[in-house]
Amino acid sequence: MRAGVRLRANTRRRAPALSNVKSLQCRECGSEYPVEPQYVCDFCFGPLEVSYDYDAVARVISRERITRGPLTMWRYHDLLPVDAEMALDMNTGFTPLTRARNLGRMLGLNNLYIKHVSENPTFSFKDRVVSVASAKALEFEFDTLACASTGNLAGSVSAHGAKAGMNTMVFFPSDLERGKILGAGIYGATLVAVDGTYDQVNRLCSELADNHRWAFVNINMRPFYSEGSKTLAYEVAEQLGWRAPDACVVPGASGSLFTKIWKGLNELADLGLIDSAAHTKMHIAQAEGCSPIVTAYDEDTPHVRPVTPDTIAKSLAIGNPADGYYSIKTIESSGGSAVAAPEEEVVEGIQLLAETEGIFTETAGGVVISGLRKLAKSGKIRPDDLTVAYITGNGLKTQEVVEPIIDPVFTTPAYEDFMTSMAAREETV
Amino acid sequence: MRAGVRLRANTRRRAPALSNVKSLQCRECGSEYPVEPQYVCDFCFGPLEVSYDYDAVARVISRERITRGPLTMWRYHDLLPVDAEMALDMNTGFTPLTRARNLGRMLGLNNLYIKHVSENPTFSFKDRVVSVASAKALEFEFDTLACASTGNLAGSVSAHGAKAGMNTMVFFPSDLERGKILGAGIYGATLVAVDGTYDQVNRLCSELADNHRWAFVNINMRPFYSEGSKTLAYEVAEQLGWRAPDACVVPGASGSLFTKIWKGLNELADLGLIDSAAHTKMHIAQAEGCSPIVTAYDEDTPHVRPVTPDTIAKSLAIGNPADGYYSIKTIESSGGSAVAAPEEEVVEGIQLLAETEGIFTETAGGVVISGLRKLAKSGKIRPDDLTVAYITGNGLKTQEVVEPIIDPVFTTPAYEDFMTSMAAREETV
Repeated sequence: MRAGVRLRANTRRRAPALSNVKSLQCRECGSEYPVEPQYVCDFCFGPLEVSYDYDAVARVISRERITRGPLTMWRYHDLLPVDAEMALDMNTGFTPLTRARNLGRMLGLNNLYIKHVSENPTFSFKDRVVSVASAKALEFEFDTLACASTGNLAGSVSAHGAKAGMNTMVFFPSDLERGKILGAGIYGATLVAVDGTYDQVNRLCSELADNHRWAFVNINMRPFYSEGSKTLAYEVAEQLGWRAPDACVVPGASGSLFTKIWKGLNELADLGLIDSAAHTKMHIAQAEGCSPIVTAYDEDTPHVRPVTPDTIAKSLAIGNPADGYYSIKTIESSGGSAVAAPEEEVVEGIQLLAETEGIFTETAGGVVISGLRKLAKSGKIRPDDLTVAYITGNGLKTQEVVEPIIDPVFTTPAYEDFMTSMAAREETV
Repeated sequence: MRAGVRLRANTRRRAPALSNVKSLQCRECGSEYPVEPQYVCDFCFGPLEVSYDYDAVARVISRERITRGPLTMWRYHDLLPVDAEMALDMNTGFTPLTRARNLGRMLGLNNLYIKHVSENPTFSFKDRVVSVASAKALEFEFDTLACASTGNLAGSVSAHGAKAGMNTMVFFPSDLERGKILGAGIYGATLVAVDGTYDQVNRLCSELADNHRWAFVNINMRPFYSEGSKTLAYEVAEQLGWRAPDACVVPGASGSLFTKIWKGLNELADLGLIDSAAHTKMHIAQAEGCSPIVTAYDEDTPHVRPVTPDTIAKSLAIGNPADGYYSIKTIESSGGSAVAAPEEEVVEGIQLLAETEGIFTETAGGVVISGLRKLAKSGKIRPDDLTVAYITGNGLKTQEVVEPIIDPVFTTPAYEDFMTSMAAREETV
């Protein structure tokens, strides 16, 4: 019974189900490490990644097994690096995939879908990665959950820390939107506003991670954390009837989400759960004011030169993207592209999605919609391509940017006054 | 396949499935009317309500049929007044029911659940009623969707209007929170800010409904609209394994939600889908600054005297509740109660829920948690009662009220500066 499944998913499961993780492995030199809170290779300083025993996965996984699972991201537990009984379940994941007919018509795309994830517990995709990282932090017996954040991550870490009863410290640039600061502080986290860019915040946190036994979800827990993003590939494939889309459009900050969606699709193909992901083109969208990955793509080099961000899309304001190099590799192997949304079109993108599909996204979503429009116009996405645009955050957290376009008619409660006010408004528009 | 179901639910269904509605019926004198956009009895001026052919419902409905349905509120289509092919589906409903162990421990409640509905498309329970009302408005061939709103309704009507391609007009008191105004305007609705209370807004809209062919979801569409709230009873019963809780705590504004949850539970019992709802006690929570239903309950009269609202919980600021009388009747027949949350405890309630369960609610949710605490303390809810608290709105829409409690530590990106700032903070707390 589905409801029972959903209900049970809120409590810890009794039957232990161990993860299929084999080791951590360096993405550069291939050195293997035990499953510990480590993120950099001792030999070559390359980033570590979770390595699975895919034979063990293949023996148990099936479409049917997934379909019978909980209505959350934990239905894909076989491909996540957490023992099932440790999963800190806040009902994250299995968010809707919506057919976007109205927006598709505007952009000339006949098979457009929106994967929207702002229905997660803290209203961004970060709940997926934090669910994994916080479960892992409990497993490693950390007392403190922490992060360096451009905004959404702070809220998610704070909420998960509250639910898990952990001490929580979140670090962010002090110019962050109010909704994101409030949306973290409300859960009782210690908020640290750093007078600097995200990249400076990140450096401070890396130093802190070296000197304190704190679980920084996106630093020392990063190999586990980033795996949570794969669920955005699994869900889309399942919701499309077990197939990969022709095109994905994904917002780009560190580049981690982008590379992990690609990894997830390929895992499904390798395991025979979908036919193939060979036809899928991966497109990454950045805001023009912070588009180092787009610049590298345009210059045809995998080496991403750091920039100082100056963008309205603060959640994407990472000037030195940790997965920039791998993002370019993902574009190359999928035949995709990188696209920059002009700063002045970000709010237009937010409006367009809201007015056509009734979905209110934040600046990162505005970047995706603006990027999608460019990709459709340039022919990089063709009219009949089965296209999925990832909308990863919620507009209520970045209200400042749409404030100028909100313009109510004012009236007294008297009928005649209202008619007069409306007539005046209609004359001016 | 579940995913397929969810996917299909985004498009209109092909097989027509007509609703089981028989007529509209006056709640006072029982006069029957055809299914039209009418809301007041011509004879006695009583409110009209949808009347179903329950024999027809009983012939088709079953737990299995519901379980096979879409993962949205439309799984209960047999008990909603909309023909299936008209349903305007924005993935509303079937939101999580969360076991609240941490909060339960704080309040001495061993079986506490949170039904949270801020994961709906516009982040409040209003999407449930507007889904029904907007579908009905399309069926009646209205061009304009409208409402009188205390905030959340405006956002929901605007989003549904955008998705349906309708002209949209939303009316609200001009002192509304910014997040609620923005959260409506972004979808392209015409915003009308009325210098007055909600009750004055409502009177203006009633006049407009008489003179324009506009579908005011909560005025001339009210009989259909209000039925959408029943899904909050159905889902809870299903998610509890097909049984009714011992106690429900529901926020009270017009009182409609409260009475419809009770109606929904009783429908399930009458249809044999649950054993009984006879043990369920219905508790309504209002903010002290606008608690006319609580006052009537305390004075042991079903006649609710209008008040002028003065409350932090603007979404509950209805001084003259349309369903006040029926709310008192619901309390009487269920053996429940009405409880007022002191104004100064509303923000405490918001904080308590966030810090224990990682759920960030708006002021209405703060009222519910504060009311729940009083009910537990007074023994009206007993420690082992299976209790469901309804959290109907999202904290990101009422950020103003928590602003004063958010207090970040400020630092430069230098490690030593951070250590100094933290030490200073720790001294002051």
